[in-house]
Amino acid sequence: MSNEPITLAQALSSFDALWSPRVVTRVDDYDARVAKVKGEHVWHVHEDTDEFFLVLDGELHIALREDGGERTVTLPTGAVFTVPRGTEHKPSAPEGAAILLFEPTGTSSVGDRHDEVPAHVDATTGHALPERA
Amino acid sequence: MSNEPITLAQALSSFDALWSPRVVTRVDDYDARVAKVKGEHVWHVHEDTDEFFLVLDGELHIALREDGGERTVTLPTGAVFTVPRGTEHKPSAPEGAAILLFEPTGTSSVGDRHDEVPAHVDATTGHALPERA
Repeated sequence: MSNEPITLAQALSSFDALWSPRVVTRVDDYDARVAKVKGEHVWHVHEDTDEFFLVLDGELHIALREDGGERTVTLPTGAVFTVPRGTEHKPSAPEGAAILLFEPTGTSSVGDRHDEVPAHVDATTGHALPERA
Repeated sequence: MSNEPITLAQALSSFDALWSPRVVTRVDDYDARVAKVKGEHVWHVHEDTDEFFLVLDGELHIALREDGGERTVTLPTGAVFTVPRGTEHKPSAPEGAAILLFEPTGTSSVGDRHDEVPAHVDATTGHALPERA
């Protein structure tokens, strides 16, 4: 991992793939990852970990299946939200967005259980940034 | 903790204190905290945890005491940096900045060892946001 600061805009400019997170830094056993997103992700659940979202640009929706039923939270630019462990969720961004994620290293982008993964969604534990991103 | 998204700008507008982090959300055993900073913090070290910084507004400097000597990294708005555990460091922001921190719940803002804490630095494990921030 870099021991120099990384500008998120520069990190985001180093790749084009959607729904395909890049690890920007490690914090103990956690990753900070950035992703470009547009359209719909897939319903999935992380059984053993919460998942943190910060919207860097654009607007993100996160559909949630909770005890009381289904609801969708909307995150404008600059908003944060933590999806609790064990909660099925599906992020989406009709107009596109850039996001920062925080979750344990090794966490899969499609969780421990998920619907069929569409071709436009990358099932990954996060890719490395290019060397000089 | 809120189960609704929180806008960081709104969270930041809910308090004025400098070097006095507010917990905006929990992620497993970690806190995401926001702080307003200006001037100099204090040399300190977290022996057992890394510490993540994201600059939301302004410019942050972090002086580091490493094996090779002392250096200062500069984080413009939108930059991230992780201070490794065991590294003495001193954040500063001559012109002021707003930052997002990520570190284990219970982590002290002045670390496990530190120089004398000046009056303008709050020694805290993070304050709660007002109810409707």
